[in-house]
Amino acid sequence: MTRTSVSEPLPVVRVGMLGFGTVGTGAFRMLQDNREAIRRRSRTDIQIVKIGIRDAEKPRIAPKELLTTDLRSIVTDPSIDVILELMGGLEPAGELVETALRSGKHVITANKELLAKHGSRLVALALKQGLDLQFEAAVGGGIPLIQPMKHQLAGNDVLKVMGILNGTTNYILTQMFEQGKPLEEALAEAQAKGYAEADPTNDVDGYDAQYKLAILSTIAFDQVVPPEAVHREGIRGISTREIHFAKQLGYRIKLLGIVERMPDGAILARVHPTMVALSHPLASVNGVYNAVWLQGDFVGDVMFSGRGAGADPTGSAVVGDLIDVCRNIRIGGAANFVMPEEQAKPAPLESLRSRYYLRMVIQDRPKALGCIATVFGNCNVSISAMEARPLGQRNLIEIVFLIHPCREADFLRSLKALRNIHIVENISAWMRLEE
Amino acid sequence: MTRTSVSEPLPVVRVGMLGFGTVGTGAFRMLQDNREAIRRRSRTDIQIVKIGIRDAEKPRIAPKELLTTDLRSIVTDPSIDVILELMGGLEPAGELVETALRSGKHVITANKELLAKHGSRLVALALKQGLDLQFEAAVGGGIPLIQPMKHQLAGNDVLKVMGILNGTTNYILTQMFEQGKPLEEALAEAQAKGYAEADPTNDVDGYDAQYKLAILSTIAFDQVVPPEAVHREGIRGISTREIHFAKQLGYRIKLLGIVERMPDGAILARVHPTMVALSHPLASVNGVYNAVWLQGDFVGDVMFSGRGAGADPTGSAVVGDLIDVCRNIRIGGAANFVMPEEQAKPAPLESLRSRYYLRMVIQDRPKALGCIATVFGNCNVSISAMEARPLGQRNLIEIVFLIHPCREADFLRSLKALRNIHIVENISAWMRLEE
Repeated sequence: MTRTSVSEPLPVVRVGMLGFGTVGTGAFRMLQDNREAIRRRSRTDIQIVKIGIRDAEKPRIAPKELLTTDLRSIVTDPSIDVILELMGGLEPAGELVETALRSGKHVITANKELLAKHGSRLVALALKQGLDLQFEAAVGGGIPLIQPMKHQLAGNDVLKVMGILNGTTNYILTQMFEQGKPLEEALAEAQAKGYAEADPTNDVDGYDAQYKLAILSTIAFDQVVPPEAVHREGIRGISTREIHFAKQLGYRIKLLGIVERMPDGAILARVHPTMVALSHPLASVNGVYNAVWLQGDFVGDVMFSGRGAGADPTGSAVVGDLIDVCRNIRIGGAANFVMPEEQAKPAPLESLRSRYYLRMVIQDRPKALGCIATVFGNCNVSISAMEARPLGQRNLIEIVFLIHPCREADFLRSLKALRNIHIVENISAWMRLEE
Repeated sequence: MTRTSVSEPLPVVRVGMLGFGTVGTGAFRMLQDNREAIRRRSRTDIQIVKIGIRDAEKPRIAPKELLTTDLRSIVTDPSIDVILELMGGLEPAGELVETALRSGKHVITANKELLAKHGSRLVALALKQGLDLQFEAAVGGGIPLIQPMKHQLAGNDVLKVMGILNGTTNYILTQMFEQGKPLEEALAEAQAKGYAEADPTNDVDGYDAQYKLAILSTIAFDQVVPPEAVHREGIRGISTREIHFAKQLGYRIKLLGIVERMPDGAILARVHPTMVALSHPLASVNGVYNAVWLQGDFVGDVMFSGRGAGADPTGSAVVGDLIDVCRNIRIGGAANFVMPEEQAKPAPLESLRSRYYLRMVIQDRPKALGCIATVFGNCNVSISAMEARPLGQRNLIEIVFLIHPCREADFLRSLKALRNIHIVENISAWMRLEE
């Protein structure tokens, strides 16, 4: 298709990139491939003038003359207007972002760890400097999420945010669910396909989702929620047995990040595997897709979904931010949102009210069930459904309970009490439910 | 919850409202209920100073001294900074918006008809005046949609946009599907519940969706797509028989707005009832919910869903825009997107390639099916599935075909030819499919 190109001379915006891995390559390609449209929409001429890399030997799609291993020279270069920080990790990224802001450069970053841990401080610095610090790519890959929460939804009192924030674990759980594969096998496959790293800790143990939820929580509730205030459980403990029962009961297992404000104003933020009812909109978000569901007092519930990772989607978010920053440069102001400075009061997980799934093995004795029901009753825990089947060995029974909404403290107390009953062989697994 | 209130003196932004119906009431209540949060996020003190209404006798939740029936006095009041146009319809809304812009006021509007027909001209005027003209509430109620397309997704070459854009018809179709009600009954119920107006033409015949798709198309493809370039079919023709077969074949019927760019660069935009496969993300968007699915060359596919209408969700979008405009006022610039002036070349519907559903009644004669298959073959139309059953009268058979992807021109040609065969009693219904 031929389209009129923007022929008027446009203001030049000079951009320096830090890091040229997956995300950097995606953003660079997008700026090349969609050059005309981006000129038209940003009303500026965006030029990548320097790219900071660690390994000068690696082959790159960018012209050699742009590459340098001297990253500091980029963030202090007086001719550069905007820095794209796409290297990840706390340091040297943090120090480079800070230097860039102090040197008068707008910054766009995809660095969730840095933002989760030091976002408030860095945004405050940007504000003081009259600069933009944007980070749409840090959560949900290409899905517009951060900016819609900051802008279009800003009139709402947010009640709850819930999301599938990590594509790697969602891919693994989808494989386990659809192919019946055990965790180790699904993980190995994800690694082979490049969806999981050699050391999968960051994804599988929920750190990545924890950082992302900390960022979303801070924006949603206008109070700083640091990552350590986000309760975190990964997916390592999930067995094919739970997958089996989830299927049978009409659920899927998802690693969810959930944050809500409790009646006393404290913020309860948590990342953990959750059994999600099939009718729930997040249940059908599969594979490497991410999704965030948000409930506001006026907007009701809204949901955003799309590709949560990968070069192109994440590059798309970085370039979207860059186009915005270029427009701001044109009009001569930063559109920065005020990051809150007030610390959120974290709510203890024990104050949660939830439904639960519980699987245990007991001895097949008379009155065994009565005995268990009594323990539940004593702890204010009540059963909504139950299913038992003999294990065919040593007179044992495997028994699965669904528990009516109750306080987590009460549920944990009931587990402790159950473990002390001699007919209980073991508490095999339990999980929180979302309907 | 007690929260630190913003105690510093903030710049005052004076707002005039035109119209105080459903949307106006929602926005007004949100500004009252969430006053502190909105102060904090906009860093301004938003004051509603005048509200223009038509009927001075109607009871309102706003203080009487703000109300006036002299709408012109609002848009020319030199003390007013921002106008919220929430009255709808082409005139006098259009003239009032224009006067407001010429009088140096930012404008926020939810008026899809006005935007679809005169959006480019009005945005151009706003740009010339250095003012904002924002309209997030015009499409998708409270769902952030317009701004994410203009900003976070702006680096993408959009390939296709597809959505459920009208909550009234989606409610009616959901009732027909879930309760087996005929259209008239579902419509009457929607009217009783206030989801449909006394004269339902605007919703039921697809005008509302047509306006909204024109707006989305213009933003997505950076070319003006006027409403008359959007092919429009409403839901009046849908019978319970099609609902029955949709169910049986694994589909749902939705009124979709779909726009895509054809290989020659022409834009094909259309609103029509569609059979959507159950596995499709739009199939599970039910009731008054709206959703938009977008495919970009880098972002891949993203989807946004939520409440597409109603006082509170639409009010939320208006207030989100207002918070943005207030920030822009603070930094002294308008963040307006450049609306394209170039007209899109509309693609004829005949150039569409689609799958089809077809229901017809034929006489049960030897070789009848062979005869029909020959007609299809002659038109380059091929059958992917077929189901026939005797009607139990006059030796007639009801027969349903699913058609492999083919050109709409060929499919229509085959229908014409079929109508001319004596064994064909009638072509009862046909519909386009989305997988």
